[in-house]
Amino acid sequence: MDIRTLLEQVQEGTLSLDQAEQALKDLPYEDMGYAKLDHHRALRSGFPETVFCQGKADEHLIRIYEHLLDKNGAVLGTRATAHQFEIVKEVIPDVQYDPISRILKVERTPRPKKGCVAICSAGTADIPVAEEAAQTAEFFGTHVERIYDVGVAGIHRLLAQRDRIRQANCVVAVAGMEGALATVIGGLVENPVIAVPTSVGYGASFGGLSALLTMLNSCANGVSVVNIDNGYGAAYLASQINRLAVGEETEQGE
Amino acid sequence: MDIRTLLEQVQEGTLSLDQAEQALKDLPYEDMGYAKLDHHRALRSGFPETVFCQGKADEHLIRIYEHLLDKNGAVLGTRATAHQFEIVKEVIPDVQYDPISRILKVERTPRPKKGCVAICSAGTADIPVAEEAAQTAEFFGTHVERIYDVGVAGIHRLLAQRDRIRQANCVVAVAGMEGALATVIGGLVENPVIAVPTSVGYGASFGGLSALLTMLNSCANGVSVVNIDNGYGAAYLASQINRLAVGEETEQGE
Amino acid sequence: MDIRTLLEQVQEGTLSLDQAEQALKDLPYEDMGYAKLDHHRALRSGFPETVFCQGKADEHLIRIYEHLLDKNGAVLGTRATAHQFEIVKEVIPDVQYDPISRILKVERTPRPKKGCVAICSAGTADIPVAEEAAQTAEFFGTHVERIYDVGVAGIHRLLAQRDRIRQANCVVAVAGMEGALATVIGGLVENPVIAVPTSVGYGASFGGLSALLTMLNSCANGVSVVNIDNGYGAAYLASQINRLAVGEETEQGE
Amino acid sequence: MDIRTLLEQVQEGTLSLDQAEQALKDLPYEDMGYAKLDHHRALRSGFPETVFCQGKADEHLIRIYEHLLDKNGAVLGTRATAHQFEIVKEVIPDVQYDPISRILKVERTPRPKKGCVAICSAGTADIPVAEEAAQTAEFFGTHVERIYDVGVAGIHRLLAQRDRIRQANCVVAVAGMEGALATVIGGLVENPVIAVPTSVGYGASFGGLSALLTMLNSCANGVSVVNIDNGYGAAYLASQINRLAVGEETEQGE
Amino acid sequence: MDIRTLLEQVQEGTLSLDQAEQALKDLPYEDMGYAKLDHHRALRSGFPETVFCQGKADEHLIRIYEHLLDKNGAVLGTRATAHQFEIVKEVIPDVQYDPISRILKVERTPRPKKGCVAICSAGTADIPVAEEAAQTAEFFGTHVERIYDVGVAGIHRLLAQRDRIRQANCVVAVAGMEGALATVIGGLVENPVIAVPTSVGYGASFGGLSALLTMLNSCANGVSVVNIDNGYGAAYLASQINRLAVGEETEQGE
Amino acid sequence: MDIRTLLEQVQEGTLSLDQAEQALKDLPYEDMGYAKLDHHRALRSGFPETVFCQGKADEHLIRIYEHLLDKNGAVLGTRATAHQFEIVKEVIPDVQYDPISRILKVERTPRPKKGCVAICSAGTADIPVAEEAAQTAEFFGTHVERIYDVGVAGIHRLLAQRDRIRQANCVVAVAGMEGALATVIGGLVENPVIAVPTSVGYGASFGGLSALLTMLNSCANGVSVVNIDNGYGAAYLASQINRLAVGEETEQGE
Amino acid sequence: MDIRTLLEQVQEGTLSLDQAEQALKDLPYEDMGYAKLDHHRALRSGFPETVFCQGKADEHLIRIYEHLLDKNGAVLGTRATAHQFEIVKEVIPDVQYDPISRILKVERTPRPKKGCVAICSAGTADIPVAEEAAQTAEFFGTHVERIYDVGVAGIHRLLAQRDRIRQANCVVAVAGMEGALATVIGGLVENPVIAVPTSVGYGASFGGLSALLTMLNSCANGVSVVNIDNGYGAAYLASQINRLAVGEETEQGE
Amino acid sequence: MDIRTLLEQVQEGTLSLDQAEQALKDLPYEDMGYAKLDHHRALRSGFPETVFCQGKADEHLIRIYEHLLDKNGAVLGTRATAHQFEIVKEVIPDVQYDPISRILKVERTPRPKKGCVAICSAGTADIPVAEEAAQTAEFFGTHVERIYDVGVAGIHRLLAQRDRIRQANCVVAVAGMEGALATVIGGLVENPVIAVPTSVGYGASFGGLSALLTMLNSCANGVSVVNIDNGYGAAYLASQINRLAVGEETEQGE
Repeated sequence: MDIRTLLEQVQEGTLSLDQAEQALKDLPYEDMGYAKLDHHRALRSGFPETVFCQGKADEHLIRIYEHLLDKNGAVLGTRATAHQFEIVKEVIPDVQYDPISRILKVERTPRPKKGCVAICSAGTADIPVAEEAAQTAEFFGTHVERIYDVGVAGIHRLLAQRDRIRQANCVVAVAGMEGALATVIGGLVENPVIAVPTSVGYGASFGGLSALLTMLNSCANGVSVVNIDNGYGAAYLASQINRLAVGEETEQGE
Repeated sequence: MDIRTLLEQVQEGTLSLDQAEQALKDLPYEDMGYAKLDHHRALRSGFPETVFCQGKADEHLIRIYEHLLDKNGAVLGTRATAHQFEIVKEVIPDVQYDPISRILKVERTPRPKKGCVAICSAGTADIPVAEEAAQTAEFFGTHVERIYDVGVAGIHRLLAQRDRIRQANCVVAVAGMEGALATVIGGLVENPVIAVPTSVGYGASFGGLSALLTMLNSCANGVSVVNIDNGYGAAYLASQINRLAVGEETEQGE
Repeated sequence: MDIRTLLEQVQEGTLSLDQAEQALKDLPYEDMGYAKLDHHRALRSGFPETVFCQGKADEHLIRIYEHLLDKNGAVLGTRATAHQFEIVKEVIPDVQYDPISRILKVERTPRPKKGCVAICSAGTADIPVAEEAAQTAEFFGTHVERIYDVGVAGIHRLLAQRDRIRQANCVVAVAGMEGALATVIGGLVENPVIAVPTSVGYGASFGGLSALLTMLNSCANGVSVVNIDNGYGAAYLASQINRLAVGEETEQGE
Repeated sequence: MDIRTLLEQVQEGTLSLDQAEQALKDLPYEDMGYAKLDHHRALRSGFPETVFCQGKADEHLIRIYEHLLDKNGAVLGTRATAHQFEIVKEVIPDVQYDPISRILKVERTPRPKKGCVAICSAGTADIPVAEEAAQTAEFFGTHVERIYDVGVAGIHRLLAQRDRIRQANCVVAVAGMEGALATVIGGLVENPVIAVPTSVGYGASFGGLSALLTMLNSCANGVSVVNIDNGYGAAYLASQINRLAVGEETEQGE
Repeated sequence: MDIRTLLEQVQEGTLSLDQAEQALKDLPYEDMGYAKLDHHRALRSGFPETVFCQGKADEHLIRIYEHLLDKNGAVLGTRATAHQFEIVKEVIPDVQYDPISRILKVERTPRPKKGCVAICSAGTADIPVAEEAAQTAEFFGTHVERIYDVGVAGIHRLLAQRDRIRQANCVVAVAGMEGALATVIGGLVENPVIAVPTSVGYGASFGGLSALLTMLNSCANGVSVVNIDNGYGAAYLASQINRLAVGEETEQGE
Repeated sequence: MDIRTLLEQVQEGTLSLDQAEQALKDLPYEDMGYAKLDHHRALRSGFPETVFCQGKADEHLIRIYEHLLDKNGAVLGTRATAHQFEIVKEVIPDVQYDPISRILKVERTPRPKKGCVAICSAGTADIPVAEEAAQTAEFFGTHVERIYDVGVAGIHRLLAQRDRIRQANCVVAVAGMEGALATVIGGLVENPVIAVPTSVGYGASFGGLSALLTMLNSCANGVSVVNIDNGYGAAYLASQINRLAVGEETEQGE
Repeated sequence: MDIRTLLEQVQEGTLSLDQAEQALKDLPYEDMGYAKLDHHRALRSGFPETVFCQGKADEHLIRIYEHLLDKNGAVLGTRATAHQFEIVKEVIPDVQYDPISRILKVERTPRPKKGCVAICSAGTADIPVAEEAAQTAEFFGTHVERIYDVGVAGIHRLLAQRDRIRQANCVVAVAGMEGALATVIGGLVENPVIAVPTSVGYGASFGGLSALLTMLNSCANGVSVVNIDNGYGAAYLASQINRLAVGEETEQGE
Repeated sequence: MDIRTLLEQVQEGTLSLDQAEQALKDLPYEDMGYAKLDHHRALRSGFPETVFCQGKADEHLIRIYEHLLDKNGAVLGTRATAHQFEIVKEVIPDVQYDPISRILKVERTPRPKKGCVAICSAGTADIPVAEEAAQTAEFFGTHVERIYDVGVAGIHRLLAQRDRIRQANCVVAVAGMEGALATVIGGLVENPVIAVPTSVGYGASFGGLSALLTMLNSCANGVSVVNIDNGYGAAYLASQINRLAVGEETEQGE
């Protein structure tokens, strides 16, 4: 029962004041239970729900994939293992797995891609995180330009791609070790740069802390940072910005 | 001399091959000396240059303000002291100083404000950073909604402002201590959230580290983080996103 | 021999001054040897001894379970492995193992449950720690309300449970990553909140440090913190508070 | 207008469905604006609002003291300076200041003290934090036993106070440097222990980090921890627990 | 050739000035090559060389054991694995291995034990480190009193052993988690206390950092600290102090 | 009343059983109240009580100096300021202050110095901590050899002092920055080395953390560590070891 | 097409101004694509490209080895596994693998070795990193003196090698645990010292952090530091310095 | 008496064997007392001794300046205050002070400058550290190219200086905040790069830690790091490398 119906019943006298008062107290919250809320959010935002596969129990993961596929006609999961691919494949034969990005996806009718997000990575070892970002953004209907292996220790490789990078509505800069890529890109473009530190490195990289601090202290304007190795989070944010740039409407109000 | 002129002179034979070769080698860089480059950037981006006042020598600061006022007709500086206000005021009598945000500004013809960015702060102690963000964004021509003192320890204060927050193209969430504000807002809105940790707190806040880690580990989608107390950086990024949303043109190519 | 008997023997002249002096010197300590002390503590507090299984040698663990079962008629162990379940089962066939909470328990006559403690968890990945807390509290005779998956990134899920949470004498808030759950709950209830940071997360969560710092810096009143992943410790404390609230008598003096 | 009145007006036809629907949407939140909500909380909890004086502007602080005194007939502020005492004294002549605890208080009719909380400190340097806790708890109507200078490097001083400590419903253990006091007390009593690390120390105490980690890793049951130097927070929590133990009623529901 | 012989040859004219000058330049150092120096040290100090087995290659370890057994008639190695026991056993059948302390030892004629060192441990999980210390000290000819499981969360267990602890020339206090044992012992005895933090614990123990900081910040006099889990180092130092106390002569000069 | 007297009165019938029982319960602890206990300790150990002046209130400090001078005929305080010297001098005109070591001392009849402790410092900036150690040890009746400015970056300076260092019963090695002095000395001598990290340095010395970690990880045998800048603690421990070496008797039992 | 050719065509009229302008815009960058640039760098520097094998996919690694062998006639890879040796061996039968240094190398005609770099290691456990440095430097044509097991806990071992160390143009000092080797060497020589902290150690070495901080805080002149375990990086730098010292020409300009 | 003379006296019989033996034992060390050694080092290296002024007592500093000026005819001190300038000026009127670099220098006949070291800084706030490096290197006879304000957020400024940077025998890269300058330069040049992190920044720069970690994790070859703000250390090392490159002879042997 929604609020309008309730008020009509009060007006008509078919619902007592006490009953109405009690119902209203609970309504705003109960009307937005967990699953329901997220369906609404997905509809509004144009971004379907996704799955963080890591650590999920086998049966649980299978049920989630079946449920979301049923509802949305497509599912994307991140940080999936080869084993998880095998078990989901038994119930959804056309599920696809990319061992580099660890994306486990069912996507029968890919969305049209709009706008442009550039995803840059510093080294080849950063590609798994960059691909998690790229494939997630594409799943959300974002056009992606992949610009990999353009670390600042060989600055000409990056400069050679300057025009492609500048055309993007938003740039995702993925880098481990010293993580300087985001700053150099931030100095080259006029649109937002989302920096993704990676855990690539050893010794004093301290699991990505080095790249994280570098990026937080960036001297360039327009750079913000997400968690270490969080390609998914960067893609979500980049897709939001890209959507604002292409002017797509979403139903923001409830 | 620009590239076209140079090539014309080669074509006409008024410039030797050796001279042309040498000039071309230097041109792309020398044509973009420090000051010049930044003038271009300001023109293209629509965001005039700003000044980080902290630690600047007195004479230096005065010269920079005079120079930028001359060029742009307006200047905004961050992290200025009352002393810096006094010395700049002697040469630019209409300079304005806000001791809360520590913004030192000359703005004779304020820009029209476009779009909407919501700037939320958790506690009253976070307001200096929030105001640095708000006044910077306004200086860049961004319409700002100030929503202060909505920390998550009293969640109803925040929920009561939900509609105002949802209308923004981008939300800046400023919080110290436990820094949870960004995540709760991230769960309420569909547009990007820029989280600004502040150094407000004591003990185990370790100068803002606590809020910084909280924000980097946010469970909400669409949240990214800038440096501790970096209200200026958040405002710059928010204004970029807002500009993309309102569809304003900038001259991106060179 | 207790102090009274000793003094009577001195009065009666059956114990020499030298003998009495020597005995008194040792009595207060020797009367409280290790095992004895803990039996007393368990009797007084109403909370039977429990076992931290992690790292215990097989034979050692078996002996401890047999010994405690003999004495108390019930045993609860935390952080047990499936292997430990197998070996204890051989000697105590009705031992029960829960692979989620890793609780290994013999409980032939469950205690009646009194009062109310609410155990809330932010995400599904925090449930193992939440269940360690819940099952421990129940073993101690505490009534538990489980309220899981109410993380603050979707604040309505938590608000919908507000009434259940408010009825508790004490709330245990279990959360990893950004750990903001404790603060939001602290703002909603009037009774103590025990915050349990978990090691759930990756990157800048640094093994639970992020959630730990968040909780220590909570802006809400009435929030205190236990060690990372320490569901057991939170349950012990919550049961103490719950017992004070229901007014149960314990024999506090020696 | 409350919900009942609104529903009556709908029933009576004096409020249209549209108007009612709009009002209901805002009501639950607007009815709980910041100030109002906190008045309610204070009434329900029996704990009046307090003031964190540190960093407050002079005029701001004076207004807050006048406002709260007007409403509650009493005000307690923590971390006040001698200067703040002077300026508040000009408008509230009977305000009292304790330079040790830095408590700035107006309390015309002290509340009756109930129950018992023991506040223990390890060294004399920890007394400022201990007194912040003690005076806050007393302001909240809690009976306090002060047991100071009982650090574990001279264990007999602590053991001599065992009986006084055991009678408390809750113990606050305040200690800097190695912070072992909480664990030893935790092993002596059956009620909750709230550990407050202090920033007392030098070198490897790292501003209280040493005591904080010690307390979080306590081997004793029933110990939880608040932020470094947070005597106020420990007192709030201790008073909540004490209130539960003495069985005082609070109006928990709305 | 030693210095005296060389000088005699110069005096006798059988060694030229040039030859003598060259020889003297190298002598002080070459006379103290690696192996030789350490034999001397062992003879002087009364402490034979020991082996840090961890990470040693199989053949390497076997050769070292054979070599040291040949020279000293006894060998003690620390941090040995069961595998290392097996391979050494093939060539030295009477080698002994203790899986708790991970000591791998050949000791055909144990030394007489002198003086007294007390080795105390807080919990049963700290026993491996305590035993590494105890068996090393015994190998060095030190009489050891083992006093285990006397953690400060049950202070009476420790107090009951006060007399045994006070008789020692030096006390080794082994503790993980909150590491408070060293301070309490330091307050009870008049001789030096060597604190050994252990990596026992989880969460905010951060691999022993918590116990390490606690011990460095000890309020008790006469407490010093060695590296985390360094039972061997504590035993070496304790044996040095014990030797000074029993007045045993060593040949200190060269 | 001591235990013997009490028992005699029971035997004589002048003390009832109830009275005796009550007295005995309190006696072991009350007989060792704070001040009394420490007097006993000082008598037993031969080391008089000392004062940590830092942060002490003026009146408090004066009273402590008068009290200890009265009792012991001598007082030593550490970390005193020039101001504290002035105020104590007003009541104790022969008090002496050393601005380098910040020792504030009254010592009318210096004790005879026994044994030998070598106190070595790496650089001139470490001398304040070295002198705190040296003067404290001398106050405790220990003979001290000062060997300053022998940092390992100029190894010959240290080697030239090898014989003086080897004659000591114990060596205190004081060093900041990279803190390598303790290890090199540890390799040269056969007696214990107490390492004192100092906060001397800048940048990556992180307030003494660098030297602290260096010393904890020392490869040399017989090295233990005290807190950063804790010259007093090193002197106390060195004097204990020196006392054991010279065979001085102390009354260890109660 | 290079710049000269382009200009000639403009002069000759065979290239239009528009075409020339477009080509020039891209030339400076596209002329220096990734692979090409690095070939140039290798030619200029005299140091052939190397491979960081860790984490490389099997097929990828094989292709890289074949490609580089083809181009340079030699390949050196670091951090290779035994498995990687096996797979590369199948296609390049004369590839060599050293399990200590984990160097995987094809070197058919070793370069002549010039100049002198001394590589010193503190303990035997540091040898893998030292060998990575030594073999890399040799591959680059540098003469290497290996001076191992000269840790400062036995200073005479190091002093005995003083002359060999002093003859080097550059010294690489490899040490874990307390890492003091670099400082002592820095005080003995007049040429640069490159310090390599290693992750050798346990407990408070925190994965090499201890040695890293020690080396950064070195009191000796002429010491700089590379990342933990980065033997390769030290060798590259040492070979650069050695090359400058021997006066070998490289083609620095483009 | 040197070794040769001593041996001659033995040969001639004017020195007894006992006397010779004793003399030889002390000679190698006593012949290299502190002051003497450093004079030798200065002579050999061509680098005169310098003074770290910070924290030096006034009289001490004056004496050191007089002494070194007397001996070397020139003195350079780093980290001097304006006050120190005043007091030294009273005794050495031609001493010069640069408030930016905080260099306090007497240099009556500047050395000829040889070779080339490029000193680059990222921002204007890094100039004090860069100037400490530049003026120190010049004092050591090194030709310096200053290339300031070439931070990587505006990469064209740096690229425009590429030729000047490439001509240097060694580059010093000074940068705070994100510290990426060293890596980008490392990718442009073939000679060594010495990275100097500065404490410039705020928030997550943690006093220079961010730049330090960035530089240690540099992806570019040939980059090593000195302590935060250590311009002096970088200049010393750069001058050593430059000297090797220009082939200047030093007397390395003793």
